Amino acid sequence: MIPGPFLLYLGHSDDPVAIKTSRGLAEFRRVDCIGEFRHDDCPLTLGLPRMGMDEAAAAGARTLVLGIASAGGRLGPDLVADAAAALESGMNVAAGLHERLRKESRLVALAAERGLQLFDVRDPPEDLSVGKGYPRAGRRLLTVGTDCSVGKMYSTLALTRALQARGVAADFRATGQTGILIAGEGVPVDAVVSDFISGAIERLAPARDDNGWDLIEGQGSLFHPSFAGVSLGLLHGAQPEALVLCDEPGRAHMRGIPGRPTPGLADTLERNLEAARVTSPQVRAVGICLNTSKLDRDEALRLCARTEDELGLPCTDPVAFGVEAIIDRLLCVEPSTPATIASR
Amino acid sequence: MIPGPFLLYLGHSDDPVAIKTSRGLAEFRRVDCIGEFRHDDCPLTLGLPRMGMDEAAAAGARTLVLGIASAGGRLGPDLVADAAAALESGMNVAAGLHERLRKESRLVALAAERGLQLFDVRDPPEDLSVGKGYPRAGRRLLTVGTDCSVGKMYSTLALTRALQARGVAADFRATGQTGILIAGEGVPVDAVVSDFISGAIERLAPARDDNGWDLIEGQGSLFHPSFAGVSLGLLHGAQPEALVLCDEPGRAHMRGIPGRPTPGLADTLERNLEAARVTSPQVRAVGICLNTSKLDRDEALRLCARTEDELGLPCTDPVAFGVEAIIDRLLCVEPSTPATIASR
Repeated sequence: MIPGPFLLYLGHSDDPVAIKTSRGLAEFRRVDCIGEFRHDDCPLTLGLPRMGMDEAAAAGARTLVLGIASAGGRLGPDLVADAAAALESGMNVAAGLHERLRKESRLVALAAERGLQLFDVRDPPEDLSVGKGYPRAGRRLLTVGTDCSVGKMYSTLALTRALQARGVAADFRATGQTGILIAGEGVPVDAVVSDFISGAIERLAPARDDNGWDLIEGQGSLFHPSFAGVSLGLLHGAQPEALVLCDEPGRAHMRGIPGRPTPGLADTLERNLEAARVTSPQVRAVGICLNTSKLDRDEALRLCARTEDELGLPCTDPVAFGVEAIIDRLLCVEPSTPATIASR
Repeated sequence: MIPGPFLLYLGHSDDPVAIKTSRGLAEFRRVDCIGEFRHDDCPLTLGLPRMGMDEAAAAGARTLVLGIASAGGRLGPDLVADAAAALESGMNVAAGLHERLRKESRLVALAAERGLQLFDVRDPPEDLSVGKGYPRAGRRLLTVGTDCSVGKMYSTLALTRALQARGVAADFRATGQTGILIAGEGVPVDAVVSDFISGAIERLAPARDDNGWDLIEGQGSLFHPSFAGVSLGLLHGAQPEALVLCDEPGRAHMRGIPGRPTPGLADTLERNLEAARVTSPQVRAVGICLNTSKLDRDEALRLCARTEDELGLPCTDPVAFGVEAIIDRLLCVEPSTPATIASR
């Protein structure tokens, strides 16, 4: 477990998408976040007190979280210098970048000298095995998407909290760096050796018999030419009873692939249901989450209503309108009842 | 490049499937194979002279190939002892197991002392990047399957040779350990970090403009709950113009998953075509390869004829009947003409 409270790193970022890990912690573990660290050229804020390294350590911060996405996941000289400063101030350092903290000898030496720790959140477990797809007990929901970064993590967390608020046992199962930092555990599925994708998820959400739910954070999209393999292995390993489809309307192209249009909602859902049946024959779709942050409220409401009508599933923006309608749908159908959009 | 000639290792194996890497080399690079090494309890043979380590080295063997699949890909004490003996006799050692030769300090020390090399064929390239799915020049064929180990590598090699025999430029692109040992290069796609599956294949078969073919060895199956993620990323990265479906009729269950039936040919083909269209909208199926080694010749011929009739594609056993009908189909259709089983 990574010791809190946290100092959240924004660095020199001027791209709101690039600070999504820091923002996720500020949003979902605010009570554990003591402040934010940013350089003078950073125009962004999470609304936390701005602090220097020494100041944060003095205020009780125990770990600096490098919660940003750098170009290519690199740990450049800026980041190393700031991480070193954090260690010198007496804080641990956590990061989820492709380049690992433990590969930087300067940081390793400093941490050893001060008795501090480096946390590479993207390190997968070492003893993974291949998935088997054998039916396992428990109720599982997976978020799937038209694309990367459309709100799957946010939706999964919102659904988890809504279930818990109704007194239903529910656990968020993290598959990406931000989710893992929020949950304190999880599997960074994109860093797993490809033979073990589904096996990693079978281990992340093992059989359970308390009638509670595992809500598994999806990744990528079956239609994304970079990451569809991860998405499919995750889907098979999750063996989900329920799918929630996530989308950001109005996106000009698939993330990172200029010129490639995003797929339609109905196609995405149908392809995911079809693929999910390999390990979960009774899988059903229970709702749609749209990230409507770029629309005004009336437009967003109209879009949700129209989508609901077109696909016959509750549709909401979890940030703006909550997820209660999806929870109603999720809980009102017995797990053994097949109900897909195809069979409507 | 791994120096030949090779001594092929059978060890203590009594399972013909477990020695498939050694058998692949004996089959496709026979001229480079000087002998086979087996212990007295091994009832198998590749039809090569049986040799001890010293004897093989004296006969000119330069590398012992540990061409067997051990339980869990482990490098147990038996294998380490035999690899050490090979080094002591003056041979390099190559293996494609999950556990790496270079993790065995005894082997590393011996190799250094004698100026010999250890080849871990399953090490992926270190500088992979994510796939992008941008259209790229060149003609590519991918073998896909109902299951693992149904003959995809064999079929891909047979198709490559048949094209070459007609004077068409054609290269076999290996994605598994046996294929890599046969080709002398390739990418072990199941060992790649999952973010890079499609990117690894884009690099394995880059754009080409000589009107020649890349014939890419498929892996796994979209229906295999252990490996479908690998299969899908491979399919997207391959961006194939043509698919050949491989199957072993009569298999009782999917490989490694007792109780799970293998999928049907038509379903498998349709699902692969549908998924392939994400990066290759004009993809077409050009043939079916059946491994009929467990049937008699008349049964095999009848099955091929019936399958051909049912799916409207040339169907053959590449070992028993060659692949000329598939090559005819492949070469008689222009690459821009869509022709799928769905549009027949």
